[in-house]
Amino acid sequence: MTTLSPTPRSTLTRKKDRGATDRQALYDVLDEALICHLGLVLDGSPVVLPTGYGRDGDTLYLHGSTGAGNLRAAAKGIDVCVTVTLLDGLVYARSLNNHSMNYRSAVVHGRARLVQDAEEKMHGLHVVTEHLTPGSWDHARAVNPKEFASVAVLALGLEEASVKIRAGGPGEEPEDEDRTDIWAGVVPVQTTFGAPVPADYVPSDMRVPPHVNRARAR
Amino acid sequence: MTTLSPTPRSTLTRKKDRGATDRQALYDVLDEALICHLGLVLDGSPVVLPTGYGRDGDTLYLHGSTGAGNLRAAAKGIDVCVTVTLLDGLVYARSLNNHSMNYRSAVVHGRARLVQDAEEKMHGLHVVTEHLTPGSWDHARAVNPKEFASVAVLALGLEEASVKIRAGGPGEEPEDEDRTDIWAGVVPVQTTFGAPVPADYVPSDMRVPPHVNRARAR
Repeated sequence: MTTLSPTPRSTLTRKKDRGATDRQALYDVLDEALICHLGLVLDGSPVVLPTGYGRDGDTLYLHGSTGAGNLRAAAKGIDVCVTVTLLDGLVYARSLNNHSMNYRSAVVHGRARLVQDAEEKMHGLHVVTEHLTPGSWDHARAVNPKEFASVAVLALGLEEASVKIRAGGPGEEPEDEDRTDIWAGVVPVQTTFGAPVPADYVPSDMRVPPHVNRARAR
Repeated sequence: MTTLSPTPRSTLTRKKDRGATDRQALYDVLDEALICHLGLVLDGSPVVLPTGYGRDGDTLYLHGSTGAGNLRAAAKGIDVCVTVTLLDGLVYARSLNNHSMNYRSAVVHGRARLVQDAEEKMHGLHVVTEHLTPGSWDHARAVNPKEFASVAVLALGLEEASVKIRAGGPGEEPEDEDRTDIWAGVVPVQTTFGAPVPADYVPSDMRVPPHVNRARAR
């Protein structure tokens, strides 16, 4: 059946000393994905919210979300789990049980802190903005003081992180070796970007700037 | 900045009586997305795992994940939050603060139960399989008793669910009205499927079956 956690090809242990290869795999997943899912415990129950984020070295910056309003009170830190998933393929096997998905996922555990220092908060907003819409920081109108006060930024270290990758073809069972009547293989899944649609107030002769086209090309 | 929870256009309240329109919006998001993010609390800390799922009426079936092995012990039920997110666009505004994403997300809260009844468990596996790889249930080799025993299925009702949708162009601020030097608009984001890649043991003259091509066309 379809589960996302068979075949962990690459798992980081919860130790601070780990191979550069694993660390790079973590960075690659975090840098390629567009959004994360932020998990936290509110009143004893789990809450999972889709959230914008960005990475700077071994720190993730998260954009404070309305739905997690309680986060603002958590200036001292709050246990979170940030999960990022890239779905790469649908895996059809000869047995239903070996049906699966190709994917890369990163799971980060830690205590997120609300960024209070103004300079770091602005830096965090920069990192989050450039992750999703690279080039916008220099192109668009800067954040004014009122806007700056209205947003929250969380910081989370990447000390406790793991990566799981499933890639390649379907698993096989000896009992299915002669079943040449069953198709098996992978349907690749990709995230693609369409042609930019200008807002109706943008002058009709204005070209789409290079940074927007670059974002599409990734 | 980039946040996923501004502009909630459609929010289901936590009441059992709600409009058919909202309910349909919930179904639409759940049926279109491929994976969910399952949040639960383990040893007091939040854990978020990418997970396969499927919907049958007002029940979500989830494929038990290795990473959530403790779920097997939770036969009496465990509080979970299941979040499904479809990213539809990158929203570039004239102000950084109005940068955003177009998305549709569903958040389901509830107490998931481990499905123990064999008939319902098989039904749950059917629902999960057909969600991600429609047509495979009738095409591939059925689950044998050993495989059946090795998997776990969770069931979660859709009583407590909400949908958030952000669509359309970027937000505007009066102070930016004259800034015709800044591009604003939306870059659409889509999930697309590549050409099926057969496993190397599939006969070279075997055509890709219709159910696999149908899955690509959605």
